[in-house]
Amino acid sequence: MINQTGKFIVIEGLEGAGKSSAIALVNDLIEQHTGQAPVCTREPGGTPLAEKIRDLVKIADASDPLSDEAECLLIYAARTQLISNVIKPALAKGQWVLGDRHNLSSLAYQGGGRGLMPLVKAVSDACLAGFTPDLTLYLDIDPKLGLTRAKSRGQLDRIEQQAIDFFERARQTYLQLAQQDDSIIVIDASQSLELVHQAIRSQLLHRLPLLFANK
Amino acid sequence: MINQTGKFIVIEGLEGAGKSSAIALVNDLIEQHTGQAPVCTREPGGTPLAEKIRDLVKIADASDPLSDEAECLLIYAARTQLISNVIKPALAKGQWVLGDRHNLSSLAYQGGGRGLMPLVKAVSDACLAGFTPDLTLYLDIDPKLGLTRAKSRGQLDRIEQQAIDFFERARQTYLQLAQQDDSIIVIDASQSLELVHQAIRSQLLHRLPLLFANK
Repeated sequence: MINQTGKFIVIEGLEGAGKSSAIALVNDLIEQHTGQAPVCTREPGGTPLAEKIRDLVKIADASDPLSDEAECLLIYAARTQLISNVIKPALAKGQWVLGDRHNLSSLAYQGGGRGLMPLVKAVSDACLAGFTPDLTLYLDIDPKLGLTRAKSRGQLDRIEQQAIDFFERARQTYLQLAQQDDSIIVIDASQSLELVHQAIRSQLLHRLPLLFANK
Repeated sequence: MINQTGKFIVIEGLEGAGKSSAIALVNDLIEQHTGQAPVCTREPGGTPLAEKIRDLVKIADASDPLSDEAECLLIYAARTQLISNVIKPALAKGQWVLGDRHNLSSLAYQGGGRGLMPLVKAVSDACLAGFTPDLTLYLDIDPKLGLTRAKSRGQLDRIEQQAIDFFERARQTYLQLAQQDDSIIVIDASQSLELVHQAIRSQLLHRLPLLFANK
């Protein structure tokens, strides 16, 4: 399997949608399928510099509130860094990459949630030059339910503290974009963990052979 | 003068062009003219968050080299933060703002120098929404002479260590953009400090009353 072209699989969803356990499951499924654990990334973050950028985005500073535009640009700075220094080199070596969020998060949160779609699309078009995941699993959940789950895990970060309508707009954007793109699979994440994992497993076992065939 | 609409004056130029002493001079001229010292900014930087971004741009990390796109986006993140939280609030209060670099630097360095003009223009258009300095003084110098001066001041940072042709391209972009924009004044910075300051003084004493009239 070493000489296969690597594939880039991304898990997306609102806070509390169950991304972490889905990532653990998909990690195992990819390893079973390819014989090798994928390179795991998270966004914003995933390189030393991108992790510093993540801190700037996540930690609120009341003396210098982060503007929406700056938030968006910082996230793209981290993303281009991650793509250049981690994702593309791994794919070129034939490794699979499993991402905790990618560009769809910016379209949903900064584009839909913040109302910055023209900026998001301009930067996305100019920076990513068509680079896109081979497959995205979007874990769909009502933000009220998701935030209740997220709160039970502990302190919410700067973005998790946004008002509920921010997350409603993000969710609607996720769903709209998924409708237009066959590479985005919507998973109903309001179900029990067992049913969510069953849905992910069934979708991936169907799609992974296609990804191999389509290399 | 307190109720005047503030004006935004920017000093631009390559390393070693003499920006610092020009800024001190322009600061004094504005203070004499308006009765109040301007708010001084530097880019990238000028807010607590933007100064952290400056460090990411200026300090090289061999283990995670900054991609050209990430450099560009970080600089714009810092700029939008500075505009939102410092420049626009000051102008709205009637204060003048004196900037050590602004958007023209990105057009010259990242657009011309790095060859990222489509990204620079896309971000610039989407983020700045036409916000532009009232007057820019561009201190023009041959990069060989400028870098010799800069080296004599001490250690060069990550950007100052670029090859000479990077600065040549940046200079050509500065000159081209100045030709197309009446609000950019080119000052020959290869002259003696005395002649440079004389040129700045003469340009400003001519322009400041026009800026007042044009409020």
